[in-house]
Amino acid sequence: MDDQDFDQQGSERAAVLAAATRARLAAAVLAATPRGRKDAAILAMADALDKHAAQVLEANAADVERARGDGTDPALVDRLTLTTERIGDIAAALRQVADLPDPVGQVVRGSTLANGLELRQVRVPLGVVGIIYEARPNVTVDAAGLCLKSGNAVLLRGSSSAQASNTALVSVMTDALVGCGLPPEAIQLVPGTSHESVSYLMTARGLVDVLIPRGGAGLIRSVVQGSTVPVIETGVGNCHVYVDAAADVTKAVAILVNSKAQRTSVCNAAETFLVHAGIAEAFLPAALAALADAGVTVHGDERVQRFATAAGTAFAPVTEQDWLAEYYSLDIAAGVVDSLDDALAHIRRYGTGHTEAIVTDSAQAARRFVAGVDAAAVMVNASTRFTDGAEFGFGAEIGISTQKLHARGPMGLTELTSTTYVVTGDGHIRS
Amino acid sequence: MDDQDFDQQGSERAAVLAAATRARLAAAVLAATPRGRKDAAILAMADALDKHAAQVLEANAADVERARGDGTDPALVDRLTLTTERIGDIAAALRQVADLPDPVGQVVRGSTLANGLELRQVRVPLGVVGIIYEARPNVTVDAAGLCLKSGNAVLLRGSSSAQASNTALVSVMTDALVGCGLPPEAIQLVPGTSHESVSYLMTARGLVDVLIPRGGAGLIRSVVQGSTVPVIETGVGNCHVYVDAAADVTKAVAILVNSKAQRTSVCNAAETFLVHAGIAEAFLPAALAALADAGVTVHGDERVQRFATAAGTAFAPVTEQDWLAEYYSLDIAAGVVDSLDDALAHIRRYGTGHTEAIVTDSAQAARRFVAGVDAAAVMVNASTRFTDGAEFGFGAEIGISTQKLHARGPMGLTELTSTTYVVTGDGHIRS
Repeated sequence: MDDQDFDQQGSERAAVLAAATRARLAAAVLAATPRGRKDAAILAMADALDKHAAQVLEANAADVERARGDGTDPALVDRLTLTTERIGDIAAALRQVADLPDPVGQVVRGSTLANGLELRQVRVPLGVVGIIYEARPNVTVDAAGLCLKSGNAVLLRGSSSAQASNTALVSVMTDALVGCGLPPEAIQLVPGTSHESVSYLMTARGLVDVLIPRGGAGLIRSVVQGSTVPVIETGVGNCHVYVDAAADVTKAVAILVNSKAQRTSVCNAAETFLVHAGIAEAFLPAALAALADAGVTVHGDERVQRFATAAGTAFAPVTEQDWLAEYYSLDIAAGVVDSLDDALAHIRRYGTGHTEAIVTDSAQAARRFVAGVDAAAVMVNASTRFTDGAEFGFGAEIGISTQKLHARGPMGLTELTSTTYVVTGDGHIRS
Repeated sequence: MDDQDFDQQGSERAAVLAAATRARLAAAVLAATPRGRKDAAILAMADALDKHAAQVLEANAADVERARGDGTDPALVDRLTLTTERIGDIAAALRQVADLPDPVGQVVRGSTLANGLELRQVRVPLGVVGIIYEARPNVTVDAAGLCLKSGNAVLLRGSSSAQASNTALVSVMTDALVGCGLPPEAIQLVPGTSHESVSYLMTARGLVDVLIPRGGAGLIRSVVQGSTVPVIETGVGNCHVYVDAAADVTKAVAILVNSKAQRTSVCNAAETFLVHAGIAEAFLPAALAALADAGVTVHGDERVQRFATAAGTAFAPVTEQDWLAEYYSLDIAAGVVDSLDDALAHIRRYGTGHTEAIVTDSAQAARRFVAGVDAAAVMVNASTRFTDGAEFGFGAEIGISTQKLHARGPMGLTELTSTTYVVTGDGHIRS
């Protein structure tokens, strides 16, 4: 590293910490801002996006052109691309956030103690939230809206490939904030696009209250390992569908195909199914045919392969890698198990704690499965695809936590808050 | 490092990870164990401690003798020392834990969604909890009881100076577990007493769900910085008492003296007081006299010094180090501020987010103070000493969290749990 690099890194670090410090000051203002003013700002941000769509689209076109020139995967280019319609959808989502109840100030519990002290546990914002994400400009606006509504300042670290789009979006949003008398530092892009600039954010303990990485498993792992700021892990999903001996075959086939194929690029899609040996003969021929119709490749164990051969459907042999895989594609690993306990043991070994499903008409089997899996969500006779903030009625979602501390499962506005105890007395002292 | 060291470290690491793996298996059993069996085991542990007190005292005597021989501070030796009476108190505390409600299985929220899916968010144990603490054998039993009650397996890493005591206590408790048909691996000491054995625990991500350090600021900082396992920070407290212009002077003096001097070695003791200039003349002479009577040394700013000189009470000049200090002694930093906003700015700069108190008869000042400080607990006209699980009516406390994620303030049994969403349908698929 020559001197110039060193200077550049030093100043980039200083810029990141300065941004975080400004965010802290903005957070103190937001914490004391009542719902009406926050909602007005969110609605103004939505209107500004509609009004300045042309400016955003121009910036986005530059990002898209560069990505195409770099030979980026067309699916990623599609995620990066904004259109007038997509900007309209993003603005509409902001208006929905404005409509949601404000978690800040909610009294979680309260009582009057024996000595007359009044105890209230009240929801407060977390403070400064860092979001680290990939080339999806919609996340820039979604995260900003959710953080503002919950009284948090946000530091956004998107992909450098979306830098022009993100800059334009944040500029439009902060102009709207200023117009509503709120500090523009409440919504900031993290300065710099180097790998180091992320690490400065990840180690800004005391300035940043929480980091939420949104993206693939690699991104999340690197944030978890490199951060001294607390991290909420999101969205790694190796989800299983277990078809119990007492399953209704028709429902089981429908749930399996829906869990796998309704949308493949999402963390709540199923990546493995396990079927009880006692129902394999009734279930597998129908299931393999339905999966084949949906274009799904089955990576089966020996017993599954035998049924696939008999049914004349294509298959691949399953490997250890398949049991571990989050395919995010039209592939599924498949095995026959001899008992519900064997299914639970398999899930304990390979599951990532996201969503596990059982299909059964046995109340006892359902009860044992629910008690035996350790996951953010357990589905009984329902598709794994239902693990979702909007489906759960939370109105919006900042991610799906697959860890156990603070938040587990879909995270809405409530999960972007902490609490404080307010204790009111009349000169009370402890004896 | 020679080969022998390497082998020894490798085998110590393997031993720690093996203990954590056994804890995970035990945690799966505990998660499915109903309250009645857990309570029976906790009561059996209490009875066993009473019955085998002699065995524990013998082990403890060896630790105490060694500590004295090493020239350990008498206050630390006192904390390390067990007596028949103290063992009786520890057993009684276990019986109180058995009496508390079981958080596991509580339904946090639930609803039937528009499509008929039944959604329930249910409390579940965290899994494996690691406790890292100093030479206080009572923590060994307290933590084991609270973790067992909340369905968690516990890995205990106490100080090597309490190793014989802790080994005896865990042996007595695990014998009781076995007698109740529960796995002894639910309560384990972390193997090894080297510095490295702690680091193996701190990096056992995936095997250990959370670490809770209990002890001084140095211990907590090293765990926070060295862990990849999520950590709940506890108990660092630079607590302030702000005496507002509209304070009742008599109540303010009583609250200040109680906050500082009722017990000094605890994290909820006050370390600084700030007084509004408008009431300094009425408040300070009485306050300085009362603090002097209680044996407290005041480290005052210039204006405080002037009043102390006039009143003839001793003082020391305040330094930057004093504003930052957690004295844990009969010392307090003191300053006069010109406004409530100046008090808030001081607290934002030096506070550790534990407990901040205001004494005022002004509803408006109280409201502004509560909104303006960022702490686990805010006291209005009450002593800082009330931030405590027992005082709050939680029945027991594993520590006081000074962080914002997962738990903030006194942590009881509820804070030792996570949740899972159980979603029940009848063949529901997503369209």
